[in-house]
Amino acid sequence: MTDKIPENVAATDRLVAGSEKFKEVMGFDPQIFIDNFKDIAPDYGKYVLEWEFGGLYTRPGLELKIRELVIIASCATLGPAGLPAVKMHIDAALRAGATQTEIVEVLMQVSFSAGLPTAMAALEVAKEAFSSK
Amino acid sequence: MTDKIPENVAATDRLVAGSEKFKEVMGFDPQIFIDNFKDIAPDYGKYVLEWEFGGLYTRPGLELKIRELVIIASCATLGPAGLPAVKMHIDAALRAGATQTEIVEVLMQVSFSAGLPTAMAALEVAKEAFSSK
Amino acid sequence: MTDKIPENVAATDRLVAGSEKFKEVMGFDPQIFIDNFKDIAPDYGKYVLEWEFGGLYTRPGLELKIRELVIIASCATLGPAGLPAVKMHIDAALRAGATQTEIVEVLMQVSFSAGLPTAMAALEVAKEAFSSK
Amino acid sequence: MTDKIPENVAATDRLVAGSEKFKEVMGFDPQIFIDNFKDIAPDYGKYVLEWEFGGLYTRPGLELKIRELVIIASCATLGPAGLPAVKMHIDAALRAGATQTEIVEVLMQVSFSAGLPTAMAALEVAKEAFSSK
Amino acid sequence: MTDKIPENVAATDRLVAGSEKFKEVMGFDPQIFIDNFKDIAPDYGKYVLEWEFGGLYTRPGLELKIRELVIIASCATLGPAGLPAVKMHIDAALRAGATQTEIVEVLMQVSFSAGLPTAMAALEVAKEAFSSK
Amino acid sequence: MTDKIPENVAATDRLVAGSEKFKEVMGFDPQIFIDNFKDIAPDYGKYVLEWEFGGLYTRPGLELKIRELVIIASCATLGPAGLPAVKMHIDAALRAGATQTEIVEVLMQVSFSAGLPTAMAALEVAKEAFSSK
Repeated sequence: MTDKIPENVAATDRLVAGSEKFKEVMGFDPQIFIDNFKDIAPDYGKYVLEWEFGGLYTRPGLELKIRELVIIASCATLGPAGLPAVKMHIDAALRAGATQTEIVEVLMQVSFSAGLPTAMAALEVAKEAFSSK
Repeated sequence: MTDKIPENVAATDRLVAGSEKFKEVMGFDPQIFIDNFKDIAPDYGKYVLEWEFGGLYTRPGLELKIRELVIIASCATLGPAGLPAVKMHIDAALRAGATQTEIVEVLMQVSFSAGLPTAMAALEVAKEAFSSK
Repeated sequence: MTDKIPENVAATDRLVAGSEKFKEVMGFDPQIFIDNFKDIAPDYGKYVLEWEFGGLYTRPGLELKIRELVIIASCATLGPAGLPAVKMHIDAALRAGATQTEIVEVLMQVSFSAGLPTAMAALEVAKEAFSSK
Repeated sequence: MTDKIPENVAATDRLVAGSEKFKEVMGFDPQIFIDNFKDIAPDYGKYVLEWEFGGLYTRPGLELKIRELVIIASCATLGPAGLPAVKMHIDAALRAGATQTEIVEVLMQVSFSAGLPTAMAALEVAKEAFSSK
Repeated sequence: MTDKIPENVAATDRLVAGSEKFKEVMGFDPQIFIDNFKDIAPDYGKYVLEWEFGGLYTRPGLELKIRELVIIASCATLGPAGLPAVKMHIDAALRAGATQTEIVEVLMQVSFSAGLPTAMAALEVAKEAFSSK
Repeated sequence: MTDKIPENVAATDRLVAGSEKFKEVMGFDPQIFIDNFKDIAPDYGKYVLEWEFGGLYTRPGLELKIRELVIIASCATLGPAGLPAVKMHIDAALRAGATQTEIVEVLMQVSFSAGLPTAMAALEVAKEAFSSK
């Protein structure tokens, strides 16, 4: 079943590839993301770019829009810890072609897997994200 | 943004609609699902069919394959509580046209949102689910 | 053991029954609850009324006061995701005849099941809820 | 509001009071509970008796049956980590006069606060606990 | 293996020992901690002093600095429920001789066990805690 | 404060460095770890080696023994999802010079941050890990 899973990209290209992917997915300069941690953990933002964006995001095998919807579902399920990520990935999902309706369906579905309070908190975040469009 | 969200289906049709949807999605008789709870909570299985399958699943606005991948991500994020549901919805996702690669990408992505131990436990479930195919 | 678990109420009556039950339990117009989601997920509030209030809440077999204390315990255990629900159900518990002392005992007990930080956050919510009485 | 919350019992009586309370609530010798940890953390069982059973359980202000139902709800919400405690406190709840129907209602209610997979796992535990009666 | 685990301190000394330990570890008057709960649960702060600080903290076998780093890791893993405790124990860890670098390494490590959003929220708290030094 | 945080190791060396570190920390061949995922997600084990072991573990600034105790605390807090990792890192902690007493103190401390059921489940795992020594 693994024939479609690609080889790792060359490790040397990870941070570069991750920065480009971040820019494409999120639509803003990855340096802003890195700088968010510069006073506390200056390597941390680079790790996230290298590992998540240069690692998983550059893999084929899952359409970007679906990847974003899946991340929204997982981060919403985490509860409030995940809500800043829910907001960031709602923006990314819309950029990747998801509709607001798809995002709302995802969050309503979370009611059944993770309970009403958790889903309601994420719907509140979506309301704010959509109203700023 | 809500113009695409449909009216509720008529409440009288919920259990019937949910049973049909369950059959279509899961591929087995919903009575088996209901009977699983019959000694302890005989209404419970009907509620799930009525609410989740007759309610959310019958809504347009989210492709079934994506809904299943999203449920897998959310249930995997719950940790071991969600693993029986991960298994059930892996079967449903494959029936809905998802590839094993898509499912694996979803679970690897959960590593970043919910941590390695949680993702590894779900990958283990996927391994079992795929090997029985 | 299930002889005391009642038949489902007729599905057609769910939303009506749930709206009435919500009004009785919460003491305010369920339309306010529905309208909270109207810009983002206009069916969502109706689903909650229909399923939770028209479904579980209308069942006999658990005294309303106990049901509310149990919901408070479960929502407190969720952590911050559950705190808006803790607040709402503290109001409902008091309306159903629970004392402040009972609610505080429930939340102190959560210290042992879910840990001190989680219990303390819920006690903080209770302090605010009680002080507005 | 705190006039009904009693003074601490004298600290010297905690372990004795907790052991007696455990015996009354659980119906078996607290030494068995202590011995469960004797090879790994010999003080641990005594701490639990002293703190939870000698501390919270001996407080007035919450009927024992309700306390047990509340603990079941909180431990069920924790997911699988809480399931051994769910089982133990189902026994205690039945001893305190709760009906099987009350316990099932509590666990069905957890579906809304914590999601279906978490509630289903606890219902499964309840099924086993009831069938051994 | 348990030969190094000490006997319980005499129960009568718990609250006194816990208050002294709290003062030493946290660097401020435990009465402030008790008073934080006085309007809602007047015994609660005393319980925490007695049980956590008079119980576990007074045990030998784990260096205070390590105990604080371990508490930070556990509370960070809880997500937002644990963040006030993360803040409090960052102060205690620094008092016990931990460096800011050690604390940051602990929180970065939480990325792998509990996921990025949870670790990021704790790093944000650490940033605030350090900047007030 | 960040002057002690080192530069990233060169990205090309990540997988090699991670494999060596894994061998040193865990005491067994990292290929066994990689092979555990080879039928389901053949890159996954390499990612973990590269990111967690080649990334975080190779950083100075946190003594290995403390890193292991911190991971145990965080994974124990996750609940059952984290228990296989608790077991693996108990072995690593002992190899890094931690005593059984230190590990037990860590897990008892988790009782306060994450609750008794979660701590008890981890103590059970420690009991098994120690008894096989």
